[in-house]
Amino acid sequence: MKKIAVLGSTGSIGTQTLDIVREHRELAVTALAAGSNIALLEKQIREFHPNIVCVYEEEKARLLRDNIKDLSVCVVTGMNGLIECATEPEADTVVTAMVGMIGIQPTIEAIKAGKNIALANKETLVTAGHIIMPLIKENKVSLLPVDSEHSAIFQALNGEDRMNAHKIILTASGGPFRGKTLSELQSIAPKDALKHPNWSMGQKITIDSATMVNKGLEVMEAAWLFDMPIDKIQVIVHPQSIIHSMVEYVDGSIIAQLGVPDMRLPIRYALFYPGRTQQTVGERVDFVKLKQLTFEEPDMDTFFGLQLGYEAGRIRGSMPTVYNAANEWSVAEFLKGNISFLAIPTLIREAMKHHQLIPSPTLNEILNTEQETYDFIRGIVRSGLIR
Amino acid sequence: MKKIAVLGSTGSIGTQTLDIVREHRELAVTALAAGSNIALLEKQIREFHPNIVCVYEEEKARLLRDNIKDLSVCVVTGMNGLIECATEPEADTVVTAMVGMIGIQPTIEAIKAGKNIALANKETLVTAGHIIMPLIKENKVSLLPVDSEHSAIFQALNGEDRMNAHKIILTASGGPFRGKTLSELQSIAPKDALKHPNWSMGQKITIDSATMVNKGLEVMEAAWLFDMPIDKIQVIVHPQSIIHSMVEYVDGSIIAQLGVPDMRLPIRYALFYPGRTQQTVGERVDFVKLKQLTFEEPDMDTFFGLQLGYEAGRIRGSMPTVYNAANEWSVAEFLKGNISFLAIPTLIREAMKHHQLIPSPTLNEILNTEQETYDFIRGIVRSGLIR
Repeated sequence: MKKIAVLGSTGSIGTQTLDIVREHRELAVTALAAGSNIALLEKQIREFHPNIVCVYEEEKARLLRDNIKDLSVCVVTGMNGLIECATEPEADTVVTAMVGMIGIQPTIEAIKAGKNIALANKETLVTAGHIIMPLIKENKVSLLPVDSEHSAIFQALNGEDRMNAHKIILTASGGPFRGKTLSELQSIAPKDALKHPNWSMGQKITIDSATMVNKGLEVMEAAWLFDMPIDKIQVIVHPQSIIHSMVEYVDGSIIAQLGVPDMRLPIRYALFYPGRTQQTVGERVDFVKLKQLTFEEPDMDTFFGLQLGYEAGRIRGSMPTVYNAANEWSVAEFLKGNISFLAIPTLIREAMKHHQLIPSPTLNEILNTEQETYDFIRGIVRSGLIR
Repeated sequence: MKKIAVLGSTGSIGTQTLDIVREHRELAVTALAAGSNIALLEKQIREFHPNIVCVYEEEKARLLRDNIKDLSVCVVTGMNGLIECATEPEADTVVTAMVGMIGIQPTIEAIKAGKNIALANKETLVTAGHIIMPLIKENKVSLLPVDSEHSAIFQALNGEDRMNAHKIILTASGGPFRGKTLSELQSIAPKDALKHPNWSMGQKITIDSATMVNKGLEVMEAAWLFDMPIDKIQVIVHPQSIIHSMVEYVDGSIIAQLGVPDMRLPIRYALFYPGRTQQTVGERVDFVKLKQLTFEEPDMDTFFGLQLGYEAGRIRGSMPTVYNAANEWSVAEFLKGNISFLAIPTLIREAMKHHQLIPSPTLNEILNTEQETYDFIRGIVRSGLIR
């Protein structure tokens, strides 16, 4: 029996993780944590019987406690509550599926408590890779990537000597606006950007996919996860999202991982690693039906958010935090209708220009950098200088 | 220093193997064996300084001995000579690159002598898999496939639990006549069939690729190598020959190996296994230039030689020997202009119908079955019943 804690259990990755737990009697849930969706959280508690749950918002936690008086589960709150869930003594693996910087500290505490990490929180490695990776080694735990690209790379490195990896080929769907020009992108509305061709995901990540900032974050994440220089990570646009990513070895041989675009594949892989388990739901790839897989160079002039990701990844230090925070705030402004689609990468670029680099930031400095970047972006948006 | 014996050193795989030895100071040659091309063999001896060489034909061996009087190398002949080369005491790995049944006995003796086998001789597993595979286990040696498809599958299984492999997806270029109808195939001349779109190979294997009998042999070989039921091996036509083959796992994940169509890749992999070494010559895959990879179902009604391969593989026993021998003889008759292109699979079918199955043939019974099949095909061709 493998026991897991799910942080961010009511989000897209969290609910899909629980779908997989439901399928497999070998998995059990010891802890759940959610932000505010206590209606869904209550359902999850009644189905999966965790020992402890965290509701980040104090008021919502009180409401939940009232609603589940009939159960003996312990309800905790805030960052301390998250950390309690992340270090729940019985958990073997912690699935970190919260969105945002809030995921970093619980991840650090989980690693220190000897838990394996199924990592679905991009910010953790992008902003604090230099803190996380040494901790992973020191505590001899596994860091299992949950998104499809990094899971593919992880699988392509299976059984191989990491030193023989020559480069990483990170595939990108290209998002809904692949092939469009800068002037065509100017008038994109949130509802257009929320239509992803292949993947069903949360709002924030769907916009990130449309701007290709998502791919910029993934390049930085891959660099940390696989100890690979940024410029040995090549992004290739592959609209069908069947090849999830590849590793090219020194001998010219390439190992690729393929599958249907279904997040349950990488989640299942992380939960059952180093084994594999039978797929019980969902399709399989049918090459005859598929007919073709296509590839293009990414248009980094138009999707310059990706170009900025490479730059932030080359600079490292606090710059990836600026990139991520500027993007996060800008996407929120875009979804509220306050700025244009192209203002998202433009604001990231401005924030990166404005930032005074901290070469090896502490967790506090990372969080401060985030706040300063938010303030900077809010200021520009309010000023109306960039729309 | 890894020491290798190359059986079939003057053929296509043999010379490419020596190209790789030339590139890498970590490799040395202890034994060479050839059929009759003593001019090339002499060059190889002078360059690679083996301890022993075999020339299969006695008369040619005498000529060679005269020509290399200045050297101290020992020249042996016939099957005994081949076996001496295959068991040369210093050799770590024996590359079995001879064409035909002649490869089986030296391979068996090499395994018994504790050598790892880099297997490029299809007949060995197709006809004697039931003898070879238990010997491999018993002697705890590695059996490293040298052709591109099986090397791809081997690499896709790296670091994985074989029990989690759900099926094998064996790619096929489709050969030069992909998309043609039966009536179009009727008038194919040897010179048309010898033009392979992607691979530069020997004559026999090029014709086998055009009939897709090559793929039938590979399906049977894969079944033995990876202990996979014939009907869990799916052939997919992939004209670009970039994906060399794939393994689909129980969880729906597919691991593929890709590379440019260059036999030196799988040879290098077999020689350096379990490591990898830097590619020093040849291209790498460029997905942007490549633009697309396409897939189609094989047309087994037109290329019914492949269908017959599945049948022989399901039946096993002596039937794969009949399939292989009937093909070998028919291809020779086709190249001599004695029969039509479509007579090749037609004659295989007739030979399979005519054969009295031996469920678990000894090596002698395999060799007798081969001879009987040759005689049967020769008889039909002479009779003029099938042209």
